Amino acid sequence: MAYFFDMAVSSRFRGMKILNLLALCVLIFSLANIVPMAEARIRRYKWEVKYEYKSPDCFRKVVITINGRTPGPTIQARQNDTVIVELKNSLLTENVAIHWHGIRQIGTPWADGTEGVTQCPILPGETFTYKFVVDRPGTYLYHAHYGMQREAGLYGSIRVSLPEGESEPYAYDYDRSIILNDWFHRSAFEQAAGLSSIPFQWVGEPQSLLIQGKGRFNCSSLNSPSLNVGIICNETNPECSPYVITVIPGKTYRLRISSLTALSALSFQIEGHNMTVVEADGHNVEPFVVQNLFIYSGETYSVLIKADQNPTRNYWATTNIVSRNATFTTPPGLAILNYYPNHPKRSPPTTPPSGPLWNDVGSRLNQSLAIKARKGFIIPPPQSADRMIVMLNTQNNVSGNVRWSVNKVTYTLPHIPYLIALKENITSAFDQTPPPDGYDFKNYDIFSVAENKSYTIRNGVYRLNFNSTVDIILQNANSLSNKTSETHPWHLHGHDFWVLGYGEGKFDIYNDPKKYNLVNPIMKNTVPVHRYGWTALRFRADNPGAWAFHCHIESHFYMGMGVVFAEGIERLGELPSSIKGCVHRK
Amino acid sequence: MAYFFDMAVSSRFRGMKILNLLALCVLIFSLANIVPMAEARIRRYKWEVKYEYKSPDCFRKVVITINGRTPGPTIQARQNDTVIVELKNSLLTENVAIHWHGIRQIGTPWADGTEGVTQCPILPGETFTYKFVVDRPGTYLYHAHYGMQREAGLYGSIRVSLPEGESEPYAYDYDRSIILNDWFHRSAFEQAAGLSSIPFQWVGEPQSLLIQGKGRFNCSSLNSPSLNVGIICNETNPECSPYVITVIPGKTYRLRISSLTALSALSFQIEGHNMTVVEADGHNVEPFVVQNLFIYSGETYSVLIKADQNPTRNYWATTNIVSRNATFTTPPGLAILNYYPNHPKRSPPTTPPSGPLWNDVGSRLNQSLAIKARKGFIIPPPQSADRMIVMLNTQNNVSGNVRWSVNKVTYTLPHIPYLIALKENITSAFDQTPPPDGYDFKNYDIFSVAENKSYTIRNGVYRLNFNSTVDIILQNANSLSNKTSETHPWHLHGHDFWVLGYGEGKFDIYNDPKKYNLVNPIMKNTVPVHRYGWTALRFRADNPGAWAFHCHIESHFYMGMGVVFAEGIERLGELPSSIKGCVHRK
Repeated sequence: MAYFFDMAVSSRFRGMKILNLLALCVLIFSLANIVPMAEARIRRYKWEVKYEYKSPDCFRKVVITINGRTPGPTIQARQNDTVIVELKNSLLTENVAIHWHGIRQIGTPWADGTEGVTQCPILPGETFTYKFVVDRPGTYLYHAHYGMQREAGLYGSIRVSLPEGESEPYAYDYDRSIILNDWFHRSAFEQAAGLSSIPFQWVGEPQSLLIQGKGRFNCSSLNSPSLNVGIICNETNPECSPYVITVIPGKTYRLRISSLTALSALSFQIEGHNMTVVEADGHNVEPFVVQNLFIYSGETYSVLIKADQNPTRNYWATTNIVSRNATFTTPPGLAILNYYPNHPKRSPPTTPPSGPLWNDVGSRLNQSLAIKARKGFIIPPPQSADRMIVMLNTQNNVSGNVRWSVNKVTYTLPHIPYLIALKENITSAFDQTPPPDGYDFKNYDIFSVAENKSYTIRNGVYRLNFNSTVDIILQNANSLSNKTSETHPWHLHGHDFWVLGYGEGKFDIYNDPKKYNLVNPIMKNTVPVHRYGWTALRFRADNPGAWAFHCHIESHFYMGMGVVFAEGIERLGELPSSIKGCVHRK
Repeated sequence: MAYFFDMAVSSRFRGMKILNLLALCVLIFSLANIVPMAEARIRRYKWEVKYEYKSPDCFRKVVITINGRTPGPTIQARQNDTVIVELKNSLLTENVAIHWHGIRQIGTPWADGTEGVTQCPILPGETFTYKFVVDRPGTYLYHAHYGMQREAGLYGSIRVSLPEGESEPYAYDYDRSIILNDWFHRSAFEQAAGLSSIPFQWVGEPQSLLIQGKGRFNCSSLNSPSLNVGIICNETNPECSPYVITVIPGKTYRLRISSLTALSALSFQIEGHNMTVVEADGHNVEPFVVQNLFIYSGETYSVLIKADQNPTRNYWATTNIVSRNATFTTPPGLAILNYYPNHPKRSPPTTPPSGPLWNDVGSRLNQSLAIKARKGFIIPPPQSADRMIVMLNTQNNVSGNVRWSVNKVTYTLPHIPYLIALKENITSAFDQTPPPDGYDFKNYDIFSVAENKSYTIRNGVYRLNFNSTVDIILQNANSLSNKTSETHPWHLHGHDFWVLGYGEGKFDIYNDPKKYNLVNPIMKNTVPVHRYGWTALRFRADNPGAWAFHCHIESHFYMGMGVVFAEGIERLGELPSSIKGCVHRK
């Protein structure tokens, strides 16, 4: 907007003419769209992506910023608005692509921003325009979807409100967005190089946790905070002062809590304040009260809190790692719930609450089970499916590399994006053999380390019949370490799915479907599969395009933990040439 | 080659057929080329570029390797051979381009490998084929020419020998290639982010110097060699054991010494052994003897040494920084001249020679002046020029950024490469106003800090008349620091130039040309401009294409210290589509 504004004011006279012209355009546009689009607007953003030194947790490192910020600017829109983001890549040698997480991209599958799946990457010096409609209210995210750039800091919030005059089925006075993240001091390049090394080098636990881009690393844990390799760590840097949520006593706040961690499952809690969960991934939840909210990478929740505690002091909001033991490696993330008019930086007089035990799986499973669609907002699921795909998640050693697999296939993205290859019938672009719909249910022992035989690196797609109903059973198993099973948050692009159920142990394809919740299942786009457990999803393949479905842990996706679905490609018109920069180059 | 070989052996029967076919092709090819190409061969390389952890100086960091190595494989060819490099980019999110430094690319300007000038970059997942003829014998280099990737380790040697049966005008028994480099522990991304920061953050002096990819950082200077940010430094790592040049007593060695430093000017010396300089940048030098060789980034020399010292011990070969004061920051690089049959790792019994003083400008200027074309190999320069461009090199503050400028223009590369924009007449691709041919000779004080007025960031080109003779005077000046003037090695793509002279102070356009050496000037592709001095070059604009001419210091080029020449574009046929991937994308 700034650009057009500058143009308009550059000369008052010329500006007036442009403004008149704009007014005319708006008028024509309005007339052409009176009925369905009366309230829809265009939300236009101009973003520049580049490298900058930042100290989100007091430790200075190069991050990728949008318009100088990480997290980037929040996109605020109303339901049915069109969002246009003109993204200029000002990185030096690195391409980029941004995914609009939770936005289904109905009719615009090329705007999903998933490199290798829906578009070629955006080169340094190029400006790419993302244009899509936000068709549902709710809390969404955006982030890089190329290599491991997300954890370099390229992420932010999308907040879609109801159309003017409509209101949520719950009351609140104010609305705040908070993204949780984990933070690593090694660059994404270093992490990726380690993950591809033989011997394998794991990324390790994060150095800190960020609440809305701010965390605190204990600089004194470095023997010398400024070595000659240029380490700068300064706990008095205002960039890493704790995030402050200021509240007015007596008021109710909607906190939109989301997680874009690279690795960690988190718990979030506010000292002395219960939270009422009302939204999950853009869908209304039958309200339930928690002391702590478990949240997995890629999930968004809205919780309501009431500022009804002693107003003469501030309170801690904290986040800590669960599901992995980071007790001795990663301190909790801290923010301040500031009761106005106390000083926002005044530390609460208490010790920050420590959060639940990292290995309390039961509580996490209970929260998963508690999330149901809100009465009056239930979207009934189809009562049966046309196809069931059981996806066994295993960790494997493939030719010396540690990889993650689904049904013995460890995923790699092709150079030519699927959407283009499928639409233009470039069969050489990827493996035309689809991956398997299941595994050896009878003989595979999910409680043992994988035998690591016949695992292959492949890039075939699951082709789904258009409008068919598909069930996905995510089956967890033992990792390469004995008696260990990790938690994986799976995220589906282009659709929401109904969460039909969670279970422990091996999914029983004969009996477990009988226990599905077909009454009031929540719809989501990201869901955890718990240790040694399974999660059952159902979705309708009703969105023409190619869509990634993958573990949202950055390193797990890099290590092959994902698949791609394709449906209704024949229904698509011509693809925009702007997504095809990497294709016709011979 | 491995790939074709694998194909051939995959089935013996099928293999035989392919081999017969190949033989037939070779026969046809030979018949078609009997006269001019009788001895020329194709040298084919398959390279894969990726990130790997390496410890060239004992400090572990992510580098860019070619086929697992840094420096990459040496290209060995004979004069008139065709070199084909199939380059696969296996980086994660980063593009790449490789420049063949010193190869003039006559008839193949699109193969020069200069991103933004001669080609679009090569995307991750893509394979790009460089194909060019090495038309002159000599010592050349290759390295990344995109962003600051060169200093991430992407570089190597090209050695072109005389046609079979021909011999050099000097005798030697063996031939060795040694690349000198400086090494930084911060990544190229971090360095670039610092250089673009306000306030400016300089890259500083290198942590170590590498001789043929091996150096030694003093790990104990880190307070703790393995902090939780993952620093690993290990002086017993064989990757950083000193480079060994093994010699047989009594034999004469041709050492091809080249420099690809990111920043440093160097001196190279071998304890107890004189060096006779015989080649510079592919041209025969009238031999002269040095105790130490001064060498600037982008230069190559051949020196002869005779293994005529006490053969019962080994000797140090060392390199140290000159022109900048790195006495307290960068230890000398060490290698071992190993007299066979002594153990190659046996340390010499002496203290390594310390090399000349860093600030001894006179000795460096003297070496520059000593380099003349060898008798019998003199290529006479045109006795006059059609155009003279005087290039004032200044350091400036442009809108808060520290930049380098030529005649008040600080350079930035366009998104669409010049070669394509010029050939296809895409006038919007770059500033159509050419940069100035001179500066305010009368009033500009080269001994003072620049006033920093009216400096602009631009990307116009110097259009040269085809086959015209062009004189370039590089005029050095004071930097932004009082009483400081740096040394800049300028490198010209696509041509060799005659080095007509060097001088101190401000170039006098009336009188200094009278002192030009028009008798036996050396031809080179890289030449230093000394502190507060000038260097005069002459070249013929006889190679259709667009050619960069720039300071070979990686950070200086990044900061704008370069220009582009274009000539004879109208003589070019259609450009290969493989270089145009970033262009037709709207």
